[in-house]
Amino acid sequence: MYTYDYLFGFTESFFRKLGCSDNDTRIIADVFLAAELRGIPSHGMIRIKDYYELWKAGRINVKPNVRIVHETPGTAVVDGDGAIGMVAAYRSMEIAMEKAEKVGTGWVSTRGSNHFGIAGYYAMMALAREMTGITMTNANPLVAPTFSISRLLGTNPIAVAIPANKQPAFVADFATTPIARGKLAVAEKKGEKVHLGYVQDKEGNPSDNPAILKEGGSMVTLGGDYAHGSHKGYCLSAIVDIFSAVFSGANFGPFVPPSVAYLPVLDKKTGEGTGHFFGAMRIDAFQPAEKFKEKMDEWITTFRNAKSAPGKPTVLIPGDPERIFEEKARKEGISIIPAIANDLNNIAGELGLDFNIQ
Amino acid sequence: MYTYDYLFGFTESFFRKLGCSDNDTRIIADVFLAAELRGIPSHGMIRIKDYYELWKAGRINVKPNVRIVHETPGTAVVDGDGAIGMVAAYRSMEIAMEKAEKVGTGWVSTRGSNHFGIAGYYAMMALAREMTGITMTNANPLVAPTFSISRLLGTNPIAVAIPANKQPAFVADFATTPIARGKLAVAEKKGEKVHLGYVQDKEGNPSDNPAILKEGGSMVTLGGDYAHGSHKGYCLSAIVDIFSAVFSGANFGPFVPPSVAYLPVLDKKTGEGTGHFFGAMRIDAFQPAEKFKEKMDEWITTFRNAKSAPGKPTVLIPGDPERIFEEKARKEGISIIPAIANDLNNIAGELGLDFNIQ
Repeated sequence: MYTYDYLFGFTESFFRKLGCSDNDTRIIADVFLAAELRGIPSHGMIRIKDYYELWKAGRINVKPNVRIVHETPGTAVVDGDGAIGMVAAYRSMEIAMEKAEKVGTGWVSTRGSNHFGIAGYYAMMALAREMTGITMTNANPLVAPTFSISRLLGTNPIAVAIPANKQPAFVADFATTPIARGKLAVAEKKGEKVHLGYVQDKEGNPSDNPAILKEGGSMVTLGGDYAHGSHKGYCLSAIVDIFSAVFSGANFGPFVPPSVAYLPVLDKKTGEGTGHFFGAMRIDAFQPAEKFKEKMDEWITTFRNAKSAPGKPTVLIPGDPERIFEEKARKEGISIIPAIANDLNNIAGELGLDFNIQ
Repeated sequence: MYTYDYLFGFTESFFRKLGCSDNDTRIIADVFLAAELRGIPSHGMIRIKDYYELWKAGRINVKPNVRIVHETPGTAVVDGDGAIGMVAAYRSMEIAMEKAEKVGTGWVSTRGSNHFGIAGYYAMMALAREMTGITMTNANPLVAPTFSISRLLGTNPIAVAIPANKQPAFVADFATTPIARGKLAVAEKKGEKVHLGYVQDKEGNPSDNPAILKEGGSMVTLGGDYAHGSHKGYCLSAIVDIFSAVFSGANFGPFVPPSVAYLPVLDKKTGEGTGHFFGAMRIDAFQPAEKFKEKMDEWITTFRNAKSAPGKPTVLIPGDPERIFEEKARKEGISIIPAIANDLNNIAGELGLDFNIQ
């Protein structure tokens, strides 16, 4: 087990070595560690190597000029200038909240960015300011629209964080596919099959092979198949893509740049970099803040007290599993699997840093 | 087949007889007919009887004072004063667009309303003003959260309409369940079973019985079961409920009032009436309008040209099926099934009106 402070400090040192400012390294480390704390390691320390390789390939700007390029009192388009995603995203969410302070809500669409870690991090930034936070991002194309075998969409997540009073905040953070990409990789490594309804082969037939993406297959959208509403998952994923990329001037759908250096830069561009979308809504733009939070408590309590089906777990509120994981991780430490720890040790060595192998 | 004009005129006369103003009757008729034109008859003329019965029971206010009760430059809470849903919703969307004109986006949460017909109608109001429109509503509780057998949520739809240039607009309008409630009723009438993954029995077991809701069963959320992401559908449905009801001060979740008079008024209230949520975002609050619309055309063309799986239909853009249905209905007329035509004939008679039986 690693302590939070050790991993945070290592991540800061690492990105400082790449040339990031102190402020940016703090943001990057905070988002990576949030993923580890919340039990989403697929978006945590494992991604440091990806960013390192992108940096070596000259595909990341560590001294970006993240700036507003278009705005109204309630909206902005931010150009991330090729930044590490966390840096562009953090600043964009700050701008959304500043605008919300003034006119009730703020909405920012961001281009020229890269993979930003967990969407929920930015949505949750709103909670401390008594705002509802919303985050979306497009992502590398792995997902086929309903009826199609073309990989046109990413797993395009949506995160929504809503403040409560005595209850923990409502925090939804989910990909618009039945499962996250990372679960396929885990099943593949374990040599396991996956449920039907996650992926299809290159002809569009349902497949239980978690490695089918390497054979021209694709992931399907939430809903799984047309009879079960995959076209609704397609709608959601499309909305995320359009709000993130058409609104901002980023690359959309199949043209989102790879978030790993071993995939080549695409020939065609439809904009700049990866796109994100951020929203902040002051709760007191709708209700007196105390009244809002009390009603959220009542909502949460009502749903938490729902009757479980026989043999099923307690009914959860969005954010419960991640919060429970975090409480444990803060006490017991964060586990990094040996293959990732070795990778970190190797790349740390290349930069004259250490990463402890436990 | 009925002509559009005949049904529109009848609907206007009908609601004028109930005491609605000329302006309100025009709005109500327009929304009912939009449902028929777009091939969603479950939200069209069939609902006139429901509203008539609610009116007879004194549960509808035909002379409502629909008004803003709280606002910021970019947000408002609207109290529908017990109005027919279309009247409260239409005014709310107008307010959202007025606010968007001033500060870039406008967001309205509405309480004290009733069933408002198709969500897509209000989202599409934004298109003519070069805005993206968003609509959500909560609805009568029929849906159980993941792991639960308690009916706490409605089919809670989300609609998003985004303008394009030469291409028809992108119009997504979908319930956050695998299928709409109306499809269960159709299967039941035909004596057919339904796919597993739509409904569960009172113990939470998957069921193929479309009438299972009458036996304590419930609908499930988009995703179907936990392994296939039903918790993501639950997140979506919960977000719709909270934005519609906690933001506005309407009844949330299990406390949404029945949209039919044969179900009694609930004992417990957590707010006023049914809740909706509306958003309008000027496209030029993010990009120059022409550039935005051209890029939407490019997005739409890219997805329309996606490769279909062998034997599958062409890949559709959200809004395509409804638009194609409308083109046909405008030419060939609107079909009303005999049982509904008879109902309309009967209730028309009670008010001294005629409805032609064909």
